[in-house]
Amino acid sequence: MKILLINGANLNMLGTREPEKYGSRTLQNIENDLVEYGKTLGIELDTYQSNHEGEIVDKIQNARGVYDGIIINAGGYTHTSVVIRDALAAVNIPTVEVHMTNIHAREEFRHTSLISGVSAAQVVGFGEKSYFLALEGLISILNQQSL
Amino acid sequence: MKILLINGANLNMLGTREPEKYGSRTLQNIENDLVEYGKTLGIELDTYQSNHEGEIVDKIQNARGVYDGIIINAGGYTHTSVVIRDALAAVNIPTVEVHMTNIHAREEFRHTSLISGVSAAQVVGFGEKSYFLALEGLISILNQQSL
Amino acid sequence: MKILLINGANLNMLGTREPEKYGSRTLQNIENDLVEYGKTLGIELDTYQSNHEGEIVDKIQNARGVYDGIIINAGGYTHTSVVIRDALAAVNIPTVEVHMTNIHAREEFRHTSLISGVSAAQVVGFGEKSYFLALEGLISILNQQSL
Amino acid sequence: MKILLINGANLNMLGTREPEKYGSRTLQNIENDLVEYGKTLGIELDTYQSNHEGEIVDKIQNARGVYDGIIINAGGYTHTSVVIRDALAAVNIPTVEVHMTNIHAREEFRHTSLISGVSAAQVVGFGEKSYFLALEGLISILNQQSL
Amino acid sequence: MKILLINGANLNMLGTREPEKYGSRTLQNIENDLVEYGKTLGIELDTYQSNHEGEIVDKIQNARGVYDGIIINAGGYTHTSVVIRDALAAVNIPTVEVHMTNIHAREEFRHTSLISGVSAAQVVGFGEKSYFLALEGLISILNQQSL
Amino acid sequence: MKILLINGANLNMLGTREPEKYGSRTLQNIENDLVEYGKTLGIELDTYQSNHEGEIVDKIQNARGVYDGIIINAGGYTHTSVVIRDALAAVNIPTVEVHMTNIHAREEFRHTSLISGVSAAQVVGFGEKSYFLALEGLISILNQQSL
Amino acid sequence: MKILLINGANLNMLGTREPEKYGSRTLQNIENDLVEYGKTLGIELDTYQSNHEGEIVDKIQNARGVYDGIIINAGGYTHTSVVIRDALAAVNIPTVEVHMTNIHAREEFRHTSLISGVSAAQVVGFGEKSYFLALEGLISILNQQSL
Amino acid sequence: MKILLINGANLNMLGTREPEKYGSRTLQNIENDLVEYGKTLGIELDTYQSNHEGEIVDKIQNARGVYDGIIINAGGYTHTSVVIRDALAAVNIPTVEVHMTNIHAREEFRHTSLISGVSAAQVVGFGEKSYFLALEGLISILNQQSL
Amino acid sequence: MKILLINGANLNMLGTREPEKYGSRTLQNIENDLVEYGKTLGIELDTYQSNHEGEIVDKIQNARGVYDGIIINAGGYTHTSVVIRDALAAVNIPTVEVHMTNIHAREEFRHTSLISGVSAAQVVGFGEKSYFLALEGLISILNQQSL
Amino acid sequence: MKILLINGANLNMLGTREPEKYGSRTLQNIENDLVEYGKTLGIELDTYQSNHEGEIVDKIQNARGVYDGIIINAGGYTHTSVVIRDALAAVNIPTVEVHMTNIHAREEFRHTSLISGVSAAQVVGFGEKSYFLALEGLISILNQQSL
Amino acid sequence: MKILLINGANLNMLGTREPEKYGSRTLQNIENDLVEYGKTLGIELDTYQSNHEGEIVDKIQNARGVYDGIIINAGGYTHTSVVIRDALAAVNIPTVEVHMTNIHAREEFRHTSLISGVSAAQVVGFGEKSYFLALEGLISILNQQSL
Amino acid sequence: MKILLINGANLNMLGTREPEKYGSRTLQNIENDLVEYGKTLGIELDTYQSNHEGEIVDKIQNARGVYDGIIINAGGYTHTSVVIRDALAAVNIPTVEVHMTNIHAREEFRHTSLISGVSAAQVVGFGEKSYFLALEGLISILNQQSL
Repeated sequence: MKILLINGANLNMLGTREPEKYGSRTLQNIENDLVEYGKTLGIELDTYQSNHEGEIVDKIQNARGVYDGIIINAGGYTHTSVVIRDALAAVNIPTVEVHMTNIHAREEFRHTSLISGVSAAQVVGFGEKSYFLALEGLISILNQQSL
Repeated sequence: MKILLINGANLNMLGTREPEKYGSRTLQNIENDLVEYGKTLGIELDTYQSNHEGEIVDKIQNARGVYDGIIINAGGYTHTSVVIRDALAAVNIPTVEVHMTNIHAREEFRHTSLISGVSAAQVVGFGEKSYFLALEGLISILNQQSL
Repeated sequence: MKILLINGANLNMLGTREPEKYGSRTLQNIENDLVEYGKTLGIELDTYQSNHEGEIVDKIQNARGVYDGIIINAGGYTHTSVVIRDALAAVNIPTVEVHMTNIHAREEFRHTSLISGVSAAQVVGFGEKSYFLALEGLISILNQQSL
Repeated sequence: MKILLINGANLNMLGTREPEKYGSRTLQNIENDLVEYGKTLGIELDTYQSNHEGEIVDKIQNARGVYDGIIINAGGYTHTSVVIRDALAAVNIPTVEVHMTNIHAREEFRHTSLISGVSAAQVVGFGEKSYFLALEGLISILNQQSL
Repeated sequence: MKILLINGANLNMLGTREPEKYGSRTLQNIENDLVEYGKTLGIELDTYQSNHEGEIVDKIQNARGVYDGIIINAGGYTHTSVVIRDALAAVNIPTVEVHMTNIHAREEFRHTSLISGVSAAQVVGFGEKSYFLALEGLISILNQQSL
Repeated sequence: MKILLINGANLNMLGTREPEKYGSRTLQNIENDLVEYGKTLGIELDTYQSNHEGEIVDKIQNARGVYDGIIINAGGYTHTSVVIRDALAAVNIPTVEVHMTNIHAREEFRHTSLISGVSAAQVVGFGEKSYFLALEGLISILNQQSL
Repeated sequence: MKILLINGANLNMLGTREPEKYGSRTLQNIENDLVEYGKTLGIELDTYQSNHEGEIVDKIQNARGVYDGIIINAGGYTHTSVVIRDALAAVNIPTVEVHMTNIHAREEFRHTSLISGVSAAQVVGFGEKSYFLALEGLISILNQQSL
Repeated sequence: MKILLINGANLNMLGTREPEKYGSRTLQNIENDLVEYGKTLGIELDTYQSNHEGEIVDKIQNARGVYDGIIINAGGYTHTSVVIRDALAAVNIPTVEVHMTNIHAREEFRHTSLISGVSAAQVVGFGEKSYFLALEGLISILNQQSL
Repeated sequence: MKILLINGANLNMLGTREPEKYGSRTLQNIENDLVEYGKTLGIELDTYQSNHEGEIVDKIQNARGVYDGIIINAGGYTHTSVVIRDALAAVNIPTVEVHMTNIHAREEFRHTSLISGVSAAQVVGFGEKSYFLALEGLISILNQQSL
Repeated sequence: MKILLINGANLNMLGTREPEKYGSRTLQNIENDLVEYGKTLGIELDTYQSNHEGEIVDKIQNARGVYDGIIINAGGYTHTSVVIRDALAAVNIPTVEVHMTNIHAREEFRHTSLISGVSAAQVVGFGEKSYFLALEGLISILNQQSL
Repeated sequence: MKILLINGANLNMLGTREPEKYGSRTLQNIENDLVEYGKTLGIELDTYQSNHEGEIVDKIQNARGVYDGIIINAGGYTHTSVVIRDALAAVNIPTVEVHMTNIHAREEFRHTSLISGVSAAQVVGFGEKSYFLALEGLISILNQQSL
Repeated sequence: MKILLINGANLNMLGTREPEKYGSRTLQNIENDLVEYGKTLGIELDTYQSNHEGEIVDKIQNARGVYDGIIINAGGYTHTSVVIRDALAAVNIPTVEVHMTNIHAREEFRHTSLISGVSAAQVVGFGEKSYFLALEGLISILNQQSL
């Protein structure tokens, strides 16, 4: 079972910015731990980050036939990108949407996600733990489908 | 560590209705498994279900000083109840909001949750697995606070 | 054939309030006449009234397997209750929505009904006669289904 | 007692289109049965159908002094015609609005009726039975007025 | 002259929660002082609190013929409850709406009150003093009516 | 303790217009009684009325360092004046908003007040009694602050 | 100079309905007086009334090359008819819009006129006098153009 | 019969600005002609212009008992002034609203008039002729009332 | 293969109005060329124009069983007519919507088409060429269906 | 005459995804046929596809002075991209917008196109045939301009 | 070259209020420095402040023929005053709008400016420096026009 | 002191397009002059332009620790890009937003800027002069911070 983790715009700044506030854990750290955690669950996890909407679309398109599931935190593109939505709908791979912070307690324009409608599930607000829960949950969804 | 699980309106019908579709697992079954799972994580879980908005408010108020965290699936009250929101805000216990189905892919009026603004995190769309992920996530939040 | 009549909030005040305006007919009177009329049509009618949203949800849930059809005048809950809507959708019993007054000629917020989307039909504005027409109409719907 | 039944745009296609779906009953059949049913209730029923908004306005204007009540299913004009509304308001004859299908479970733009505000009552969603219930209900309204 | 004071959802938590912030005065304390103050003004004041929308409706209905005026702080129900509005309109007893905090300086959804349209007057934002002013004001309204 | 009472546009017409309807009490009468009532409470009350938005802004600005509190009924400016709001926010004197009639039961555009967000409290709907309650309430607020 | 007066839906009912309220003056009476008044001003006035949107469009189209100006009271079509607007824009004849009643003090949906944007001027609210003022005003506009 | 003509903000610039475009006729010229025209109709016309909202309110208040009718072109205040609306409603003198240009063919925010709801009638879009028609129309309204 | 071309309100004015601007080609010219062009493609094309909404509905209804496809330019009815939409949906004949001008670059109210939702395809903005492309496209759609 | 065909996000997936549903024709196939068809019409067609908004902007900018016309199907960017709109407006090359499916019968957010306002024409809903009709139509537009 | 600086409501309070927060610089100080700075740039600057909407309109009207440019910070009138907008449009003097704070990061109702549409340019958010930049920018605009 | 100037989509076309209209000054020319001007003010200015949203995000992220301030004209991305907003918020470098034209006098969708909320200040509408004023203003802001 192979899973692709996609992080969108500005998530590459994790850990290098204001470590006293967001902790000293970089996206690299989190990705490494997730890969390790994936191994213990018997799955292979590839990671990807980009600030470019088009590149994320490319990545999703190329996931077809390669990955069984996708975990995505599209960052600010969550609220504006019809093309990422369309790409996810087109490849039709089970997808879990992740956010580290509770987007519903932030600005009005962050309350709406264009991705929620085409993802199977969401995990929101647990900090970096959100990714680990999303991984577990996605495996659960994939196992149900393979029955 | 003690956690309270609250299920709102119509969730008592799980498992007894159209078992060929929703599975034969009742809310009772899920609650039992969650309690057992909680034990393995070293926490005590109490469960509660009601179709009555006012009773859910009572239950949340009485949770103060007794429970360290709340997991809530308010059912249809998610979209209309200011008083459940107020009760959660008043007791100020870390809360995780849960939905079994992806509410963002259903009717327009289900896209808005009055509870999201006062909960710490959300787990949405993993079926009954949503509850288990919420439990894990809530423990993670509580552990971070107790550091 | 068994039918359940549910009257929601404030309808228990019929007939006891301003009899010179609303007539001296109480809800009890109307219910009795409906039961009698039901007998002449060969059906059994049970009646229920509550001012409590949660109790109406309970009542609808328990109607499954017991009643063939539901007639409901939810009163003010018509415009705000997602949980009554959900309960009706869950039990999936043919339902007719009733209003004694023409809600479309009253305040703006009474023009929208959350129940209309999950009911099969509506009878609006005939005074107490609305209930009798709803009963006839519901039997007609049930007979078509049983063909 | 004389009553006028008005059917608006596209209702003349009933019964001749997709009989396996809508039944083989034409508008003509329904009108005939309604006329017969009216006779048993001691009233005279005239029927009229037009796809033309202006003709319906003419018909309503000419009803003054001739008919005691009106039953109207304006079809698609229900949602757009201020002039039919104005005509009904001008002649001030008690009117019952009818729809065969549950318009509240269809497209958004069908949820609003310009006619509801000037009609006394509505019967919605019972198929052709809607007309028969409307006839009964209208007679009830007229009898109350003549007391 | 008899007056009924109704407090809605979550107001029973006054004084027991964060006393350093809200003061150590419980709802019980405030109610007692109001009763005493009422005596000095020559009126009898009964108090009631409930977190249940339906129970508040019951209480209002039963106030007819018993009480000359109502003071109500419906808490979170202020913004969502059509049935409390309907009950107040039905019993037609002069009513004063009270809020301890300035709801107009809080979240957007608290700026609208369904109760304001059927109450005679409002007192908002004076803390517990709001209740005392409401009592004075209600007596003034009742005295004007009895002239 | 010194308090300033400001009455905005058209309130100077009180008592001189349709006395059989609004009573024969002029604004002058009410102001005199309020000054007297203030004396009994140990405070000094100055009164002011203007139909000019700019003059009201001038008056509020000059209140700084002179008055301890403000009572304001801005009349029609309540719904349109950002500059009166800004002036109140700038001088930062505790302010109580007053309306003689229940503005929430009048036209839609009167339901919103630009002043509510910067006033501490509101008294609405008690007729001229509103001013007296506002005076009492404002003193209560000022006393709490001076503790 | 030739002018065409067009009256739309339901205006043919003037004078024949509720004469004690609207006066006993029929549209025929008003049209006759207008024709006479036109003669005194040296212009020829033709009159036309129809309840049919399409016929009004036909009439406007045929006015090109025949009439120098148009006076139109489209009745209820004022608020819904894009095609009458288009016809007026197409023939490009100076047009004055007339309403007998003050449409701005009636229902919300009557506050918007699709015709105002393509007419040169409006006369609203003077009863039948509106037509006479519109005639004067239209002549004034035509005279300015012919300079 | 005495009539007051009020011109609001910026109308004092008529005729002195871009005479090749707006004509060389000043507001003074128009007012003089209107006064003369009024004399021929047997009425006395007083004129007034101000750029100050508050002064216009003062003027309207003082018109009570002095003038039989008001003609008002409030300029830009038309779209924002609740206090002018309130003043007109308070003095309850028959009022005609005037605009020289067709406000419905200009910016969106000019399509709404706060004054239309409290004026008896409107004349819009005839240039300076609008004032003369308004005068005629107002006299017609006053004559009907005095019957 | 038989195709019906329907042109709605005001399209009969093509070519006869402002020929220097719109060209000297009348609707008659365009229709003739389209009929000829149809022959070269082996199809029979009938043409129809009306300014009357009801007549267009009649025409569409009568197309059932006679025509294989419809091309429609409803003119101004595009934006307001539910009944034309309903008629097209009822006869269920593949339909192509045509506009000569780019309606998306005109007034706001022309951006919405009630017909687009029930037509198979649209051709917009090519002037009279729009009709020829629509004819080609419709044949393509019909050929695909007949495979 | 040289024309540029631009396909935006996700259109590269045509033909390779679900061939039994969308056909086995790839974008490459369609582009090849269009180039061939272009040759028969005497024009040169270049094709381009990208999932990247910025690259599409680059491509459009570079088209100035090179191409006589543009055909664009921007995919999901149709509904969100102001910069593609700006680029098209800046180069001012006649442009035809294409969609294979009827976007007006899909999700609400697909009903609005930012590109329609700056394109000359649209062809929507004919499947791959849309491109061929757009090519024909664009040539027609270019020929008219070159007259 | 002569320039007029207009400051609207509440800006006279600068420097005298909370000097530790806004600095001890009064509006007088800033105006003086601007006048001096203007001299170094070879222009004459007059300053004006008023809390009165009407006076600001008067001032703008009188600027015609006297001043070459206007700098305006209308304070709270920015968001509500159509008449100041109209005055600026009428005198047609190049105008720069200034705000000291970033109004786009404040309350929702401050995000819209009625003045922006008729001003040539805006400088927002640089504190008192905003005025100096506006002066430079305005001179730049005036110099370009005089070429 | 180092400052970064970012120009977004389509601004690279300045000067090369329609020189008779926009002038013959290219973005290169303006950038060069700004760099020179910066030198005279003692600051170092780097310039950057891209049509790619993702590249602008990359550039902003890399500005951290390198630049003291940012000047940005995001072009069309101003109105749609949450990710540029997020990047600016993340690096937390004082930023001035620039527009050459008055965006408030253009299309509705250009009136809202996602960047204004996270920028310190804006300069809008002075043509290329906007950049020079922004540079001056930004230095002023940076100097105040370094006090």
